[in-house]
Amino acid sequence: MSPPFVEISFHVRYAETDAMGVVHHAAYIIWFEEGRSAFMRACGLPYSEVERRGYWFTVAEVHARFHAPARYDERVLVRTRIAELRSRGLTFAYEVRRASDEALLVTGETRHICIDHTGAVRRIPQDLWEVLQSAFEEKQRERSS
Amino acid sequence: MSPPFVEISFHVRYAETDAMGVVHHAAYIIWFEEGRSAFMRACGLPYSEVERRGYWFTVAEVHARFHAPARYDERVLVRTRIAELRSRGLTFAYEVRRASDEALLVTGETRHICIDHTGAVRRIPQDLWEVLQSAFEEKQRERSS
Amino acid sequence: MSPPFVEISFHVRYAETDAMGVVHHAAYIIWFEEGRSAFMRACGLPYSEVERRGYWFTVAEVHARFHAPARYDERVLVRTRIAELRSRGLTFAYEVRRASDEALLVTGETRHICIDHTGAVRRIPQDLWEVLQSAFEEKQRERSS
Amino acid sequence: MSPPFVEISFHVRYAETDAMGVVHHAAYIIWFEEGRSAFMRACGLPYSEVERRGYWFTVAEVHARFHAPARYDERVLVRTRIAELRSRGLTFAYEVRRASDEALLVTGETRHICIDHTGAVRRIPQDLWEVLQSAFEEKQRERSS
Repeated sequence: MSPPFVEISFHVRYAETDAMGVVHHAAYIIWFEEGRSAFMRACGLPYSEVERRGYWFTVAEVHARFHAPARYDERVLVRTRIAELRSRGLTFAYEVRRASDEALLVTGETRHICIDHTGAVRRIPQDLWEVLQSAFEEKQRERSS
Repeated sequence: MSPPFVEISFHVRYAETDAMGVVHHAAYIIWFEEGRSAFMRACGLPYSEVERRGYWFTVAEVHARFHAPARYDERVLVRTRIAELRSRGLTFAYEVRRASDEALLVTGETRHICIDHTGAVRRIPQDLWEVLQSAFEEKQRERSS
Repeated sequence: MSPPFVEISFHVRYAETDAMGVVHHAAYIIWFEEGRSAFMRACGLPYSEVERRGYWFTVAEVHARFHAPARYDERVLVRTRIAELRSRGLTFAYEVRRASDEALLVTGETRHICIDHTGAVRRIPQDLWEVLQSAFEEKQRERSS
Repeated sequence: MSPPFVEISFHVRYAETDAMGVVHHAAYIIWFEEGRSAFMRACGLPYSEVERRGYWFTVAEVHARFHAPARYDERVLVRTRIAELRSRGLTFAYEVRRASDEALLVTGETRHICIDHTGAVRRIPQDLWEVLQSAFEEKQRERSS
């Protein structure tokens, strides 16, 4: 994943493992969510604030590829960036890596649609969009440099 | 558990297991919840209806004792009854058993308080209370017979 | 989804909802898993038996599209079929529908690789493969008829 | 909770909320687990190491009291200490607080039994026991001072 992305790090919880002895695949979907929560906080626009404003970035699609397993007590990294930004939605991309050796564990994307509390699709409000756009463009700039 | 109780049965999900190879202890807390959902449905008063009426039976306390583990794909029974009914709350009691031999796996209780959507403690509305009381008394009657 | 598929039905658990008031998107990934557990049981080859034989169908990829939300206490249907069968793995496809009106809620696929307990990729053992092939061909036959 | 305890802090995940708009009660049980994982790490005896040695501190009982709700994106503190240490098991006590104002959200205990991988109850191995005893005594000393 090319920078800039927002990275968080935490220990694998025991409850996140399954009888295969490794992290259950659905747990990574929740880590993706925690990754984008951290991304939004780092942008100065916590998602809780988006909700207070009356908007939801509902999940329209999720895709994950599992490369190698994480295990209980290991420290993992979740890296999140905006992959696409549109007027009515956005796509986040994720990488999960083991912290000790940065081995790639899981990659994925989630596609979101902006809705209001009636469920109607809405344009992302201008001021929120500008915050996201700035985070997205920073990434583009970084890539082309 | 003395009758009458409401019993549901389902297969253990893979996601409910952990690296010990058995069901994670927090999963039973969710089964308790599913047990009381089934209890309320069987009373003709689904909890979703309680919520639509503007009330929540918020969880004030949970207690569980783990006797033996359940494993993936096993069929389990969850038996639920009202253990105590008061004007502003109630306590459910639970038993989880393995379906094949009725071996006792987990027992527990959850204590609930009736609140409205502002979070204020409220009396359980009379008509809801009567439904619960009838389910509770049936149990008492059965016990003394 | 064209038949034959294996269908299961259950109530949405309260714990599966989130602060949007609807089912959290990761819960459907767990329902997919429960769908393929039911599929394998219906084939006469429970996945727990596959594991006892020393094999795992590890999840290599998951993809889900969210069309409409499910809510607490609703009854839902999960339909599962084999979408692709290969010597070293297979892909399941899923549909989640609301039971009351069969409204389509979520569709998805999971791709699996057959590994042994050392993590090495393995051919699906011949007798297991034949059971899966028979379930898969039945589907193909049904489609072309 | 009197010191010393081990404290960890993290943000509430969206997946941990439910349709009441607050954290689901079972999520705290998982936070307790993460609290004792952190406690063991802080003792220099990660629980993953206990398992590698062939022992499990299986959960025999869990008890939680819910005082006030946590919400998505809030930062919470989980404080963990050993409440009782015996030759064949131990009890952890927990406090969950909102980080912003240290408001008490949840208190609880989990009782554990030391078993080996056959499921037989075992004395906690001497060297592990000494590490735990030292953490426990430090607490006692602190309390009486």
